[in-house]
Amino acid sequence: MSQVPRSSPYPLIEVDNALSIALSEAALCQVTQVLSKEALGFVAAEHIYSKSPFPPFKASLKDGYAVRHPLTPGIKQLVGTVTTGRSKELPPVNCDQAAYITTGAPLPPGADSVIPVEWTLETGDPGFVMISRGTQVSGQEVRQIGSDISQGELIISEGSYIGVTECALLINCGVETVQVYKRPKVAVFSTGNELVEIGSSPLFGEVYDANRPLIIAALQRMNIETVDLGIVKDDEAHVRGAFERALELADIIITSGGVSMGSHDYVKNVLEQIGKVHFGRVRMKPGKPLTFATAESCKSRSKRFIVGLPGNPVSCYVCFYLLVVPLIRKLSGHSKPHLPRVQAELLDPIRLDPERPEYHRSILQWDFERHIYQAKSTGDQSSSRLLSATKANALLILPSENKTLEKGALVSAILLECDK
Amino acid sequence: MSQVPRSSPYPLIEVDNALSIALSEAALCQVTQVLSKEALGFVAAEHIYSKSPFPPFKASLKDGYAVRHPLTPGIKQLVGTVTTGRSKELPPVNCDQAAYITTGAPLPPGADSVIPVEWTLETGDPGFVMISRGTQVSGQEVRQIGSDISQGELIISEGSYIGVTECALLINCGVETVQVYKRPKVAVFSTGNELVEIGSSPLFGEVYDANRPLIIAALQRMNIETVDLGIVKDDEAHVRGAFERALELADIIITSGGVSMGSHDYVKNVLEQIGKVHFGRVRMKPGKPLTFATAESCKSRSKRFIVGLPGNPVSCYVCFYLLVVPLIRKLSGHSKPHLPRVQAELLDPIRLDPERPEYHRSILQWDFERHIYQAKSTGDQSSSRLLSATKANALLILPSENKTLEKGALVSAILLECDK
Repeated sequence: MSQVPRSSPYPLIEVDNALSIALSEAALCQVTQVLSKEALGFVAAEHIYSKSPFPPFKASLKDGYAVRHPLTPGIKQLVGTVTTGRSKELPPVNCDQAAYITTGAPLPPGADSVIPVEWTLETGDPGFVMISRGTQVSGQEVRQIGSDISQGELIISEGSYIGVTECALLINCGVETVQVYKRPKVAVFSTGNELVEIGSSPLFGEVYDANRPLIIAALQRMNIETVDLGIVKDDEAHVRGAFERALELADIIITSGGVSMGSHDYVKNVLEQIGKVHFGRVRMKPGKPLTFATAESCKSRSKRFIVGLPGNPVSCYVCFYLLVVPLIRKLSGHSKPHLPRVQAELLDPIRLDPERPEYHRSILQWDFERHIYQAKSTGDQSSSRLLSATKANALLILPSENKTLEKGALVSAILLECDK
Repeated sequence: MSQVPRSSPYPLIEVDNALSIALSEAALCQVTQVLSKEALGFVAAEHIYSKSPFPPFKASLKDGYAVRHPLTPGIKQLVGTVTTGRSKELPPVNCDQAAYITTGAPLPPGADSVIPVEWTLETGDPGFVMISRGTQVSGQEVRQIGSDISQGELIISEGSYIGVTECALLINCGVETVQVYKRPKVAVFSTGNELVEIGSSPLFGEVYDANRPLIIAALQRMNIETVDLGIVKDDEAHVRGAFERALELADIIITSGGVSMGSHDYVKNVLEQIGKVHFGRVRMKPGKPLTFATAESCKSRSKRFIVGLPGNPVSCYVCFYLLVVPLIRKLSGHSKPHLPRVQAELLDPIRLDPERPEYHRSILQWDFERHIYQAKSTGDQSSSRLLSATKANALLILPSENKTLEKGALVSAILLECDK
């Protein structure tokens, strides 16, 4: 019983060092092809060029009358109507004639300009229109072929994120499928004999497993395919079995718990047996036992990435945003794996931790008078206290120093769930 | 042919007025019950209280030895081991005894404090441990029952968004199900004889329908259930039929195209017949023909909300973020329906539009030296040019004035897709 661990064999490394180790391991991305309309959230794995010019024909910018420049004001003969849509026979327009045209419709032969309907009047005779202002230039109120996007133009560069507008742009330019980077699949399990699922009744000594639902919700928000491997008992055989199963199922394995120094913390031990532990302790608060390893799947010999998150829910949350999110973004091909950072002014003084930089949960709000984000602390930052992460939309990066940051001090902040 | 519309019967209203009309119409929210682990992205429809204290028992904060305060340094008898998980028989600890305990495990009877393992040494005899530093206070390194969250404590208030951490917090506190506001279901169709689906070959006069994929991608990003009603031909019967079908299928109907003044623009006309058009023109650039109506479904007599977006893809995009997003958020119970706003400094001069406030697509980036967002324009802002929305993460709100805003001017900006 006295053979208990008294010190960790893992050196305490700095956060930046930990991040660069993990991101340099995650160097390779796999490529796949998707339909443009399903490309939302992927990163382009190729330069993408427009397949067709936009607009693909000379199109009217207004509802009005298609005419040929130069046209003087006066009563003009109407030769037809051109509306949007497939038109096999467009009426030709000569000098001193006009054709009614709707916005976006193709110009009929002979016409090169459009007179907006506001500059016209009815004549009483449906075969004629009164034009009150003539053309000023050829091409007036006309969108020329390819004036928005020319055929073959680079529309999305390799490494760019395909968001809502990029998705629409691809379709606009006739690009039906695109090469994108595969998004990693993630397997998740929690370790701990004390953990029970919500819905069951915990006995004395048991608590609900909140970490797995937290990780799964965060992955769901990132639109990442997830394999839920449940709760795993704190013994070497179970932990090893879970890892062996996970290695065959997913690119990234995220665990929570079992990374401290207790006699029942088997995660690091098992990771040393099945792969390589790159770091096992990070100088940060919360989240010191954060562990990162790589291993190979048995069947496909593919490289897998394993993140052992600490068991305290807040540590788990902070480490997820700090390490797992950039790791997933890097593997998904993002050129900027890190979440956006800004600066914010403290609304209250905060006592710094002299030993470790702290990732302080905070609510940022823009101050329109002072033109700066203001950061409100979420209160008691105990690593077990999930309430401290509630409503938070940012992690303040507080340096480790033996002093108090005063109200009004400027600190860096990582933006989380910013549309919250 | 000369019976064409020459002026709009709809007054040109201001953007703020349009938004308040739409949001005041969207006053009612429906309530439903969901499992906490599936509550991500919903808004709480009730005050939610913790069902159990956290931690639910006195728990060790460290790996170490459970003892009774006051304890002086020296060799102590070991009475057992307490690890996490269900423990029916905890060994009682008397004065001058100790029990090995792991982080998070429940304190055994008699013990009230924990000596961290770092303050202990092995003795050579597995039945004893050498304690090098005694207890300083009762409760040392122990998390008291309910010290993070007490039973019955308010953990999430009505109207709060349930994000990743709130989801985990609910489970942490034993809350299995929650009352939330229903999210609206949205039906989408495009109108236009010129539109074809990506994948087919457009003939002369035809273009790909990029607006519907844009709207559907944006809804997908918001995790909103969507019914895709395809492309609808520009004639009154087809447009009316599509609306009648959509009214039975969804809470919100979003259309694109058919809201201008052309002879083939039937959307407003049909909306006047089936419901009430609240506005049909808004003083904004792009997006002037933006239309908002309400109607009732025939079967359920439920109130439906209809947004007619302009057919130009960029107008469609801007109006979606400006009106549709707040409308969906309001109907989903969000207390803050609008997307977050900040200020940004222009990196280049921008010529203002003297007639209409402009929603200028822009890329915001934080300047760490000057402590402010810098806004880079996405270039030519033609309403048909989707490239101007590419890479944009913000809409600058530019006032309508007959002047140029100089480089360095400060403008308000709406944050879009901010994790892009």
